Amino acid sequence: MGLEQLSPNDTKGKIITCRAAVAYGAGEALVIEKVKVHPPQKKEVRIKILFTSICHTDLSAWLGENEAQRAYPRILGHEACGIVESVGEGVKDVNEGDYVVPLFNGECGHCKLCKCPHTNMCQHFGVNPMKKDMVADGATRFTTVDGGKPIYHFLNTSTFTEYTVVDSACVVKLSGLIDQHSLKKLTLLSCGVSTGVGAAWNTANVQSDATVAVFGLGAVGLAVAEGARARGASKIIGIDINPDKFIKAREMGVTDFINPKDEDKPVYEIIREMTGGGVDFSFECVGNADVLRNAFSSVHEGWGLTVILGIHTTPQMLPIHPMELFDGRRVIASVFGGFKGRSHLPLFAKQCLQGMVKLDGFITHELPFKEINKAFDLLVSGKSLRCLLHL
Amino acid sequence: MGLEQLSPNDTKGKIITCRAAVAYGAGEALVIEKVKVHPPQKKEVRIKILFTSICHTDLSAWLGENEAQRAYPRILGHEACGIVESVGEGVKDVNEGDYVVPLFNGECGHCKLCKCPHTNMCQHFGVNPMKKDMVADGATRFTTVDGGKPIYHFLNTSTFTEYTVVDSACVVKLSGLIDQHSLKKLTLLSCGVSTGVGAAWNTANVQSDATVAVFGLGAVGLAVAEGARARGASKIIGIDINPDKFIKAREMGVTDFINPKDEDKPVYEIIREMTGGGVDFSFECVGNADVLRNAFSSVHEGWGLTVILGIHTTPQMLPIHPMELFDGRRVIASVFGGFKGRSHLPLFAKQCLQGMVKLDGFITHELPFKEINKAFDLLVSGKSLRCLLHL
Repeated sequence: MGLEQLSPNDTKGKIITCRAAVAYGAGEALVIEKVKVHPPQKKEVRIKILFTSICHTDLSAWLGENEAQRAYPRILGHEACGIVESVGEGVKDVNEGDYVVPLFNGECGHCKLCKCPHTNMCQHFGVNPMKKDMVADGATRFTTVDGGKPIYHFLNTSTFTEYTVVDSACVVKLSGLIDQHSLKKLTLLSCGVSTGVGAAWNTANVQSDATVAVFGLGAVGLAVAEGARARGASKIIGIDINPDKFIKAREMGVTDFINPKDEDKPVYEIIREMTGGGVDFSFECVGNADVLRNAFSSVHEGWGLTVILGIHTTPQMLPIHPMELFDGRRVIASVFGGFKGRSHLPLFAKQCLQGMVKLDGFITHELPFKEINKAFDLLVSGKSLRCLLHL
Repeated sequence: MGLEQLSPNDTKGKIITCRAAVAYGAGEALVIEKVKVHPPQKKEVRIKILFTSICHTDLSAWLGENEAQRAYPRILGHEACGIVESVGEGVKDVNEGDYVVPLFNGECGHCKLCKCPHTNMCQHFGVNPMKKDMVADGATRFTTVDGGKPIYHFLNTSTFTEYTVVDSACVVKLSGLIDQHSLKKLTLLSCGVSTGVGAAWNTANVQSDATVAVFGLGAVGLAVAEGARARGASKIIGIDINPDKFIKAREMGVTDFINPKDEDKPVYEIIREMTGGGVDFSFECVGNADVLRNAFSSVHEGWGLTVILGIHTTPQMLPIHPMELFDGRRVIASVFGGFKGRSHLPLFAKQCLQGMVKLDGFITHELPFKEINKAFDLLVSGKSLRCLLHL
């Protein structure tokens, strides 16, 4: 298969010393250094990370946005794929040697939320940017090589390391035609592509001939567009203040473009004119209240739906008056595209590998793991969609 | 049948001089006086009003809330039932002698919105509190008896008069077991009961065993509760600062009560404790931002839905942070309970007359039309749910 394999028992049950990119403070360059990765405890899984990439949530955490109280040192990262090195007691659905992606939005499978078909939230392993250790014992599985001090976890995952430990609720085995090339791409499924495509498929349920506006053409916005294209949307309007984004977006199925900097009137007015009253769906992938206001106003009265995917870091409340909802416009948010990770991702991975969703355009750069700070620069400067780091 | 009948040709095509309650200024007592009601023009219907009642929207308009620019004199009123006196050219689906209710939220049947099954809005005859004349010619069908000056219309309806003229998009024929007693009750379907029951049935789609919180126990809130009861809700929590409302509410199926004035902690906390994390649905029937905040916070994370029915008259935006939507709580609004008036109300009327929805409790007072100002007082003081005026 040409894939990296682990010989069993080499490391099982032992502490692994390996390289990780450790964050020591907000906005400080990550330090590649040796760390100790302890064996998985009950219901935990230790994963050898093969590829990881950087998402805006990592960037936001790295910059220390809204997080004065977070713990350092810690290991960021949540978009990755890897191979199971060993499992703790009671882990049944993944085994050593399985190809897996970690899930920042876990699925325990037995809480009230996991049992509800209308949400992909989990009471025990939901998204919690403040979480810094394992649920089982409140300890970390990472320690420093000198002195054994804790190095904290991030988002149930921590993938900027050669090995990580996650709860079994936060990992899913992928199957299908997996080879080295596809494995790389499956990294995208652990956050950005699933979030965007899922928002179009699960949260909005975009149908054939629908009209769509995507505000913000980063990886998540383009994944929304790709999801809408796959569903047969008739018009996909991309909005971004960086016209460089339009080249890539056109390749990926976006049909129309608006650069707000080139326009005298509000974007929503232009969209209403282009579509005879407004689009059926708009997606806010920026995290800005003014953009959200435009996204909300750009959907058609009576049925239009705005889906928020952007992370809003300011205290500003929803820029919508209650009476405006009486015009039949709606606004909701989408986390991880509405996918329940362990239940739904195996099928979604197959669909991606079969070509229903085109993943090729999303990986714009590849670098060795040690150049992770350069990958952050590429994302900050808007030059990359995803820079894949090889471990 | 014991019902009032009109002998044809008595009045058809002629101006009718009759009594109406005319509003001359914000908050001023209505004046019962003679007015001229002109014949219906093309696609219009003249209705002899048999019963009318007062809804909070009339109250709000009467008080002049947010409406410095509105026209006087005018005839308020939108909750009523009556009998068709005559129809204009091209009116096909109602005839002289039909029992009808007027629709403040009309349905032309052929616009983009009317053709969409997901909304009950209409591009031509939607809710517009500023509208003051007929769509056909921009003139009024009411004039003063001395001098023929215009008296303006209100909300597509104007029912505080013995005769009114409405567009045929704004009237629906009701059938079924209609007798004098049921006719009275069908008045409720032209606004309050349809709005509340429909919000539970159509907008929220409350299912058996669901838990529900209703904020504000006026007629609309109690209609929500009645709709939820009819659908088999397991718990219906009523919230009001007027404990007098609880007596009536208990008779009408509300199972639990919270008076915020009696509590030290926020209402949403109490509701979360009562329901193991929150109700499935909350309904805001007050029109107050703090109440809305409590209603939103009282639904369960992951799937809870808040439906706004209250009229929010202040400029305050939605008191919800965009990131709070990521917890899977949703908020939408409901107009006329999601019913398309002409398409859906005939079936709903039958369901009401068959007892699926209990209408008896809503009419708490009855008065002759000339005592309309007393009926306003009863509503303002919170003593009445609906005071039925006999014409």
